[in-house]
Amino acid sequence: MSAGRQQSGRLLTFEGGEGAGKSTQIAQLAEHLRASGYTVRTTREPGGTRLGEAIRAVLMGEYGAPMPAMSELLLMFAARAAHLAEVIEPALAAGEIVLCDRFTDASFAYQGAARGLGEGAVATLERLVQGERRPDGVLLLDLPVAEGLARAQKRGDGNRFDHETLAFHERVRESYLERARHAPTRYAVIDATAAPDAVAQSIVNAVQGWL
Amino acid sequence: MSAGRQQSGRLLTFEGGEGAGKSTQIAQLAEHLRASGYTVRTTREPGGTRLGEAIRAVLMGEYGAPMPAMSELLLMFAARAAHLAEVIEPALAAGEIVLCDRFTDASFAYQGAARGLGEGAVATLERLVQGERRPDGVLLLDLPVAEGLARAQKRGDGNRFDHETLAFHERVRESYLERARHAPTRYAVIDATAAPDAVAQSIVNAVQGWL
Ligand SMILES: Nc1ncnc2c1ncn2[C@@H]1O[C@H](COP(=O)(O)OP(=O)(O)OP(=O)(O)O)[C@@H](O)[C@H]1O
Ligand SMILES: Nc1ncnc2c1ncn2[C@@H]1O[C@H](COP(=O)(O)OP(=O)(O)OP(=O)(O)O)[C@@H](O)[C@H]1O
Ligand SMILES: [Mg+2]
Ligand SMILES: [Mg+2]
Repeated sequence: MSAGRQQSGRLLTFEGGEGAGKSTQIAQLAEHLRASGYTVRTTREPGGTRLGEAIRAVLMGEYGAPMPAMSELLLMFAARAAHLAEVIEPALAAGEIVLCDRFTDASFAYQGAARGLGEGAVATLERLVQGERRPDGVLLLDLPVAEGLARAQKRGDGNRFDHETLAFHERVRESYLERARHAPTRYAVIDATAAPDAVAQSIVNAVQGWL
Repeated sequence: MSAGRQQSGRLLTFEGGEGAGKSTQIAQLAEHLRASGYTVRTTREPGGTRLGEAIRAVLMGEYGAPMPAMSELLLMFAARAAHLAEVIEPALAAGEIVLCDRFTDASFAYQGAARGLGEGAVATLERLVQGERRPDGVLLLDLPVAEGLARAQKRGDGNRFDHETLAFHERVRESYLERARHAPTRYAVIDATAAPDAVAQSIVNAVQGWL
């Protein structure tokens, strides 16, 4: 409950493939941190603002032709620019903990690696849109692709990425893991095959170091 | 009527402030070139594809907060990436003349200069999205800001930019003129205060050199 803890905000992001448990765990962690006295903001990408949700709808739409990967990437960053300006930066300036369901690591994994645009294109946009802003900690929920897809399928709703090949999702997973290997203090790789409570505990442990 | 003329496509873009006469003149030039035997494709930005028109609708929407300039810029290039991949590059490869109502010069003038994002941000996206692709010729319809706005107002419909200050539109005009000064062989500055037929004739004269 100490106000002292709130002196500087923290941006913590949840990453991982479809069905890894991001939405489940973000709610758990928010509850845990609020019970400890923190002011917590949960949000998601793409989306997070009215403009961002309109862009999310464009991303989910069908246009009679496959969406060019570059258009997809630029739409993600168009939503992100508004999300940062209207939600994330003001919350961080107010000392809040921002928990974000997907962020720029997803652009590296999905558009950069799996769609093949390359790391350089994503890094260029990251600099342009974010300046020096990076997550203080990334919670990477890792599990075998087939397991995540089976969970997502059981849950019922779907998105454009559910229809990609297994190889596509393997590239996503590998890209996330590689980014974590290169910056081990900023990433926590969480075994997402464990039971929800065990996953939640691993996340709480990882988050201690970032607060 | 000679097929020989069609060996390589040409990208010609129409630029200028609101009400300068771009839409009026693009139709005129298309008719003139078709009568001379060319295959002509007319298109516009933002838009030009189903995805692009969806993005155009997002750009014209209201979201309870001013759209960040960076989001606006990225949405423009997201539409442009699809426009290039689906429309412009295939038409050029087929030897067509593509007449485009606004293109990247508008991003430099509106988002780069008038909204203040700077030339560097726009140039970065231009390289990322277009590679080496640039217009073969730019028809810059130039006229005093007040005159263009009066025309656009008389015409009735409106867009987000009609509500900007005069100073905003002056920055747009100055940016266009400065780009033209730096690449005089690729730009034709057309006096758009003249009567429509006189403007059309100036445009035909300028286009000869680019075909
Ligand atoms: N640790 C777990 N073990 C088994 N099932 C889980 C676990 N965590 C979440 N689930 C279930 O798996 C499904 C996917 O979980 P969730 O929606 O949280 O994943 P997600 O990463 O947010 O997915 P998406 O990428 O599609 O948004 C849900 O039905 C959820 O109840
Ligand atoms: N040379 C001209 N002299 C007088 N009026 C003109 C001339 N050319 C076009 N107009 C009229 O001015 C108005 C704006 O023309 P037009 O729509 O072609 O401009 P535009 O550059 O496409 O505008 P916008 O940027 O809003 O799309 C129309 O009502 C048109 O009939
Ligand atoms: Mg989710
Ligand atoms: Mg017009």
